[in-house]
Amino acid sequence: MSQAPATFSLTNLATLVTNDPAQGDGSPLGLIENAALVVEDGHIAWVGPTGEAPAADETVDAGGRAAVPGFVDSHSHLLYAGDRTQEFNARMSGRPYTAGGIRTTVQATREASDAELAATLKAHLAEMAAQGTTTVETKSGYGLTAEHEARALRVAAEAGVAEVTYLGAHIVPPEYAADPDGYTALVAGEMLDACAPHARWVDVFCEEGAFDEDQSRAILTAGRAKGLVPRVHANQLTHGPGVRLAVELEAASADHCTHLNSADIDALAQGSTVATLLPGCEFSTRAVYPDARRLLDAGVTVALSTDCNPGSSYTSSMPFCIAVAVREMNMTPDEALWAATAGGARALRRTDVGRLSPGARADLALLDAPSHVHLSYRPGVPLVSDVWQRGVRRARGNR
Amino acid sequence: MSQAPATFSLTNLATLVTNDPAQGDGSPLGLIENAALVVEDGHIAWVGPTGEAPAADETVDAGGRAAVPGFVDSHSHLLYAGDRTQEFNARMSGRPYTAGGIRTTVQATREASDAELAATLKAHLAEMAAQGTTTVETKSGYGLTAEHEARALRVAAEAGVAEVTYLGAHIVPPEYAADPDGYTALVAGEMLDACAPHARWVDVFCEEGAFDEDQSRAILTAGRAKGLVPRVHANQLTHGPGVRLAVELEAASADHCTHLNSADIDALAQGSTVATLLPGCEFSTRAVYPDARRLLDAGVTVALSTDCNPGSSYTSSMPFCIAVAVREMNMTPDEALWAATAGGARALRRTDVGRLSPGARADLALLDAPSHVHLSYRPGVPLVSDVWQRGVRRARGNR
Ligand SMILES: [Zn+2]
Ligand SMILES: [Zn+2]
Repeated sequence: MSQAPATFSLTNLATLVTNDPAQGDGSPLGLIENAALVVEDGHIAWVGPTGEAPAADETVDAGGRAAVPGFVDSHSHLLYAGDRTQEFNARMSGRPYTAGGIRTTVQATREASDAELAATLKAHLAEMAAQGTTTVETKSGYGLTAEHEARALRVAAEAGVAEVTYLGAHIVPPEYAADPDGYTALVAGEMLDACAPHARWVDVFCEEGAFDEDQSRAILTAGRAKGLVPRVHANQLTHGPGVRLAVELEAASADHCTHLNSADIDALAQGSTVATLLPGCEFSTRAVYPDARRLLDAGVTVALSTDCNPGSSYTSSMPFCIAVAVREMNMTPDEALWAATAGGARALRRTDVGRLSPGARADLALLDAPSHVHLSYRPGVPLVSDVWQRGVRRARGNR
Repeated sequence: MSQAPATFSLTNLATLVTNDPAQGDGSPLGLIENAALVVEDGHIAWVGPTGEAPAADETVDAGGRAAVPGFVDSHSHLLYAGDRTQEFNARMSGRPYTAGGIRTTVQATREASDAELAATLKAHLAEMAAQGTTTVETKSGYGLTAEHEARALRVAAEAGVAEVTYLGAHIVPPEYAADPDGYTALVAGEMLDACAPHARWVDVFCEEGAFDEDQSRAILTAGRAKGLVPRVHANQLTHGPGVRLAVELEAASADHCTHLNSADIDALAQGSTVATLLPGCEFSTRAVYPDARRLLDAGVTVALSTDCNPGSSYTSSMPFCIAVAVREMNMTPDEALWAATAGGARALRRTDVGRLSPGARADLALLDAPSHVHLSYRPGVPLVSDVWQRGVRRARGNR
């Protein structure tokens, strides 16, 4: 990581997405054409037409490329060990495979050292930064004991993860198979006590075969009492109570939202909970996609995230999620870009990221393309070239 | 481009895909674990277990990564000018847009200088090389006069494109709207005379609204008489005669193959024509995907390619096409990798590329992953790190 100059400007941007409707074309993206921006002490100091940019210590000529806010990946599971490549290969090849599932990852994670966990996490964070992701949420959930869950959260905090989530309620571990309520009590009690100091968020996998409505409410409520803010894995595999519970508890986000009825959509539209969609998961499990169009048309705030994890969605690419959201979920290229930046920020209740207007953090990605539309127009092409995080360069393109 | 040492070895590969069933596990991929390879004068001199690798002038330690044959992208349209971003944006946003279509590109291409055409082509070739594509086919088809078609093919040959295809029969240009047979006569006559010296292949868009069976047969037969080998855009938008015509004329490849009946599949299975599938096109137009599973189960040779073009498929990423083929067309990760390498080579009747066994060209990609399965397991993640073409390094990763 290089040292940042006190101020620098990025000029000659074909387009700049600010996500500030007070800027540029006045759309939700606040799009400025022929734009420039100035960074001062790690924050955006100025945006506007390139011809009017104030002087700075250093100037980077973007050469007609586009700049977008750094992606806000508000849902990932990077605190793990073990390899599930063969499980994926068998699933996609139509071959039986019985040794897989979250339990496999739990066992490998428990056996891993702190250093191994940290190394895997940091490799993924670096990979994400190179792809333009500048804010990352990640979760525990592969330890499932007080000791292993707290250890994972500590590793995340030490690695500088911005948003850390306690997900003791990922699955009921094998040793509690006969006593799921006992496990719920542990997650809402001793395990929470060990984990709360290391996390900002509490999450539950509310699903048939994982945690039911009462168990989920107990855990989220206990977490809230400890100062954690709820977010919920909701309505992923089946229609269930997750989304309505998330809205009831004023969770920051209900994640997945694949199986919704009208009452769920009404609840989301009337509440403050963001619907976070994770199309990488449906892509990698050949599952049906959530209906983003219906959510957006109802006025629900939608975020996009990778769900990066070794079992069901091992992509770390927000551009890929944008392209799939446009193809499969009938989001427009503009809506998908907004959801992957400003939407993620809303899902994390952050106002300092996910936008590029004065006062925001200088978290941004420069694309090898003249507009953000190319992220869906050119699927799979690694268009993110240069990345800055708090004004410090994290990646540098070839140009 | 750096100078290549006379010999070099790549050691410590977790896996090496040779596409030679005589190697390694004996599967179609000829997979060798804990492998090494030796390159001599731009060709593969040796493959085998890393512990047995003979000495070389230089050694690159792959550090447990995987190597695959460079991708063979056997279908692209890179000889164009103009920008169709807004057409894509409108299509995916559900907004009407009347100024688009191939005709838009034809007009811009005719107006472009040779230097402009060459610059756009070379930018895409560089982008492809960085993503692991080491053999590229590209087509004319946006000039549609004898002068402009021949000019495009000349630009391609001068830029070093390995496989150049004459596609005067892309659409009937506006000036021949009232006389499609007159245009067919031009394509099969004067235009062919001007183009044949610059191309290896002749292609026709055999489709309702483009060229019918008789017109297609006339053009392909005339091309064959001039020494060009046929390939056909067949059965893309509707069921038609394209695939059967391709097999009848012993075309190297029938491309798209989206709408097939049993007779088409039987014909492909019994003939020598490869079925080239282009899932980027269905991805970017929200169209139904071809049924790769049915083709493979019938014993048809399947290739995967990008169809890279600014209208219907603006991806240049073979890894993306592999991931979509696995997700949407029920190919296994192994089959998709084979189709994107050896399959492309078959579609271009090349035996020197698409494999990594002694005698083949040293065209290969090193992945930031321990196996080729990760190309579909980690969709959108830019896993291709280092690329060699004829033993010369074209891209270098961060490690
Ligand atoms: Zn999750
Ligand atoms: Zn084509």
